[in-house]
Amino acid sequence: MSIPPRAPGGFPVVGIIGGGQLARMCAGPAAELGITLAVLAEAEDSSAALVAPFAPVGEASDVETVREFARHCDVVTFDHEHVPAPVIEALLADGVAVHPGPAALLHAQDKIVMREALTAAGVPCPPWATASDEGEVLAFAEQVGWPVVVKTPRGGYDGKGVLVADGIDDVREWLAAAAERGDRLLLEARVPFVRELAVLLARSPSGQAAVWPVVETVQTDGICTEVIAPAPDLDPRTAASATAIGLDIAAALDVTGVMAVELFQLADGSVVVNELAMRPHNSGHWSMDGAVTGQFEQHLRAVLDLPLGSPRPRAEWTVMGNVLGGEPTDLYPTYRHLMARDPELKVHLYGKGVRPGRKIGHVNVSGSDLADLRERARHAADYIQGVISE
Amino acid sequence: MSIPPRAPGGFPVVGIIGGGQLARMCAGPAAELGITLAVLAEAEDSSAALVAPFAPVGEASDVETVREFARHCDVVTFDHEHVPAPVIEALLADGVAVHPGPAALLHAQDKIVMREALTAAGVPCPPWATASDEGEVLAFAEQVGWPVVVKTPRGGYDGKGVLVADGIDDVREWLAAAAERGDRLLLEARVPFVRELAVLLARSPSGQAAVWPVVETVQTDGICTEVIAPAPDLDPRTAASATAIGLDIAAALDVTGVMAVELFQLADGSVVVNELAMRPHNSGHWSMDGAVTGQFEQHLRAVLDLPLGSPRPRAEWTVMGNVLGGEPTDLYPTYRHLMARDPELKVHLYGKGVRPGRKIGHVNVSGSDLADLRERARHAADYIQGVISE
Repeated sequence: MSIPPRAPGGFPVVGIIGGGQLARMCAGPAAELGITLAVLAEAEDSSAALVAPFAPVGEASDVETVREFARHCDVVTFDHEHVPAPVIEALLADGVAVHPGPAALLHAQDKIVMREALTAAGVPCPPWATASDEGEVLAFAEQVGWPVVVKTPRGGYDGKGVLVADGIDDVREWLAAAAERGDRLLLEARVPFVRELAVLLARSPSGQAAVWPVVETVQTDGICTEVIAPAPDLDPRTAASATAIGLDIAAALDVTGVMAVELFQLADGSVVVNELAMRPHNSGHWSMDGAVTGQFEQHLRAVLDLPLGSPRPRAEWTVMGNVLGGEPTDLYPTYRHLMARDPELKVHLYGKGVRPGRKIGHVNVSGSDLADLRERARHAADYIQGVISE
Repeated sequence: MSIPPRAPGGFPVVGIIGGGQLARMCAGPAAELGITLAVLAEAEDSSAALVAPFAPVGEASDVETVREFARHCDVVTFDHEHVPAPVIEALLADGVAVHPGPAALLHAQDKIVMREALTAAGVPCPPWATASDEGEVLAFAEQVGWPVVVKTPRGGYDGKGVLVADGIDDVREWLAAAAERGDRLLLEARVPFVRELAVLLARSPSGQAAVWPVVETVQTDGICTEVIAPAPDLDPRTAASATAIGLDIAAALDVTGVMAVELFQLADGSVVVNELAMRPHNSGHWSMDGAVTGQFEQHLRAVLDLPLGSPRPRAEWTVMGNVLGGEPTDLYPTYRHLMARDPELKVHLYGKGVRPGRKIGHVNVSGSDLADLRERARHAADYIQGVISE
C-alpha cells in the first residue's frame, strides 16, 4: 500500500473505510477544506474509488489491511456500519483516532443494543421485545396485537432484514434462521404513524453538536425515495421534540460524526425512534445543496474535531429525490434532457452500475414553491430511472 | 501512463491540462456529475494532483506527453492559458475535442491579438497601440498622455508583465527585452476608472451561453483581493452593457467553456475591457457557494456541451476574499478559530505551499448585510495570512 498525498500546512488525512457513495460525496468538501481523502475501497471501481486521490482496495473485515490503511490517516471514519468491532479495537490499540468509536457504532450495528440503550436513556421507541422462540413472539403479539414488525438485529438496510408478520406462521422461518446464527429477533409494534421524519445532526469529540432542520422522508417499498427539507407543516413542538431526541441520543451514546435518527410521527404529534445511522445518511443529501454546510463537509469537520459549520437552510424548501436503477444503463445521455428542462436541478450520480432498485444517485432542487420542487425532483429521478420517457 | 477510471453508464472523462487550483476546484463538481477528472499535472504535489483520481505528471508543452494524456479523455480543457498552439493543434489533428479551441485561446494568450480582435468586433477598449521602439511609445504618449500602461503581450498575470510608465525612461528596459524576444509591447492609456468589474459567463460548443451577475473586483497591488457579487450600486444600464460585452466577445471569438472579462468602469457609467481569461477565473470563485451553478460545474458542462446550469445567485450578496500567503506556513490550525468565529464561512484552500503574496485559497460568505460580509471575508483572509492575530 502506498501513501496518501498530503497538502503542506498541517492538513490531515481522513481515512474512510468503505468506498460507497457516502465516502464519494466527501471528496468535494475534502478538496475544498484542503484535507486529503483516503478510501479503503471494496474494488477499484467502487463509487468513491473513482473520485478519491488515494483508494487502495482491501477488506474492511481484515485487521491487518485496515491497520495498514490507518497508519497514514489522522482519523478514520466509515462509509458503512459493517466494520467488525475487533478491527476498530485494533485501530484504537494502535492509537488511531476512530470516529464514531466502537461503543457508539455498536448501536447502529445491532438494533437490539440500540433499543436497549434508547429505552435506558428515556428516548421514545415503539413497544419492543426480543424473541428466540414462538412463545416470546406470541406473548409480544398478545400485548401489542398483530401485525408485528420483526427485524434481524444486524445487517439490514433499505427494507431488508424487516418483516411485517400477520401471524406466528410468518415468523417461524426467521426464528429458525436466527437460532441457527445463535441470535435473537427484535420485535416491534407496528405503530400507526402518519408520516416519517428524520433528524440529522453532527457531534464532535469535544461534544459540540449542530442539528439540521427536521425533514420528512417518503418511502416506497421500504426505500427512501424523497426527502422534503424542512418537513412541511411540522408543529414547532414536534420539531423541538425530534431535535431534542437527536441531541439526547448523540450525547447518551457519545456519537461522533454525522448521525441520522429516523422517526415515526404519530397522530398526536409525538414521535418515536425507528432507526439510527451513525454516518452521513440519505435523509441528509438535501443538505449538499440546500444548507450552508452539507452533511459531508460537516462529517469531516466533526471527525476532525473542528468547529461545526452552520446547518442553516439556504432556501425555503429543498427536495431530494433518490435516483433508483431501472432498465436503462446508459445514464449520461439523460443529462441532455434533464439539464435543459431544469437548469436549477442539482444532479448527483454515484458512478455505480445500474441494478433495478439500486440507489445510484439523487437530485436536489431548492426554491419556494414546494409542489413545483417535488414535481421536478420526481420527474428527474423517474426520467433517469427510465420509468417516464420525457 | 495508466488509464483514468471511468464510471459505467457512458460518463465521460474530462482532461485538464495543468494541475493548479482551477483544475482542483473541478474535482467536487466532476464527482457530483459522475464525470471522471483527469489532470495532467506539473508535479505529484500540484494542487489538483492532491485531489484528482487520475493525475499523471507531465509537461504541458510536450506534444507527445499531451497526446498520450488526451488519448483517454473525451474532452480536453485547461487550467491555464500557457499551452502552446502546436500542442493543441496536434490534439485536434488526433480528433480530440479541445475547449476552448486554439483560435479562441490565442486571445487570452496574447494581449495584442486580444486588443486587435476586440477592436475589430467593436468592443470598447482603452486607447491602445503597439510599440517596438521609443518613437512609437512617444507618439502614443503624445496622444493619450503619461502615464502609459505598458504590457508584455504574453505570460503576465497578477500584475506581472504590467508596468505603469511615467515617461520614456521607464520603458527603455522593457523595449530592449521585447526586442530580444522578437516581440512588441502593448501600450494602453491609463483610463480614469472608478472601479473594476468582471463579467463571467460560460458558452458551450453549441453556442448556449449563461452569464452570472456582474461583480465588482477589488485589487491590492495588482492582485485581486476581494470580489463582491453582484457589484453594489450598479446601474442596470452598465450591468446590461457589461453583460452584452461579455456575450459579444464570447460569440465573436467562439469561446467555449468559462470566460471572464475584466472591465474598468468609468465615471460616466461606461465600461472598457481590461483583460480576458478563457477559463474559470478568480472573479468567479464566489459562484461556488453563491450561485445555483458554480463556475467549475458550469465549465465542465460547457466543455462537454451539456445544457448549462442556472447562474442565479443563492443569496442577496456573496463576498469572496482571496487568501494570500504570509509568514505562517501552518494553515490548518487557523481553522479552529476561523470556523468557531464564523460558522457560515466557506473556506477553500488549495493545498499549495505558502509563499508571501501567493494565492493559496479563498473564502466565501453569503447573506444580506454587505458590510458585515465584507468584514468577515476580510477577517478570514487576513487571519490565515497571519496579518491579524485574532
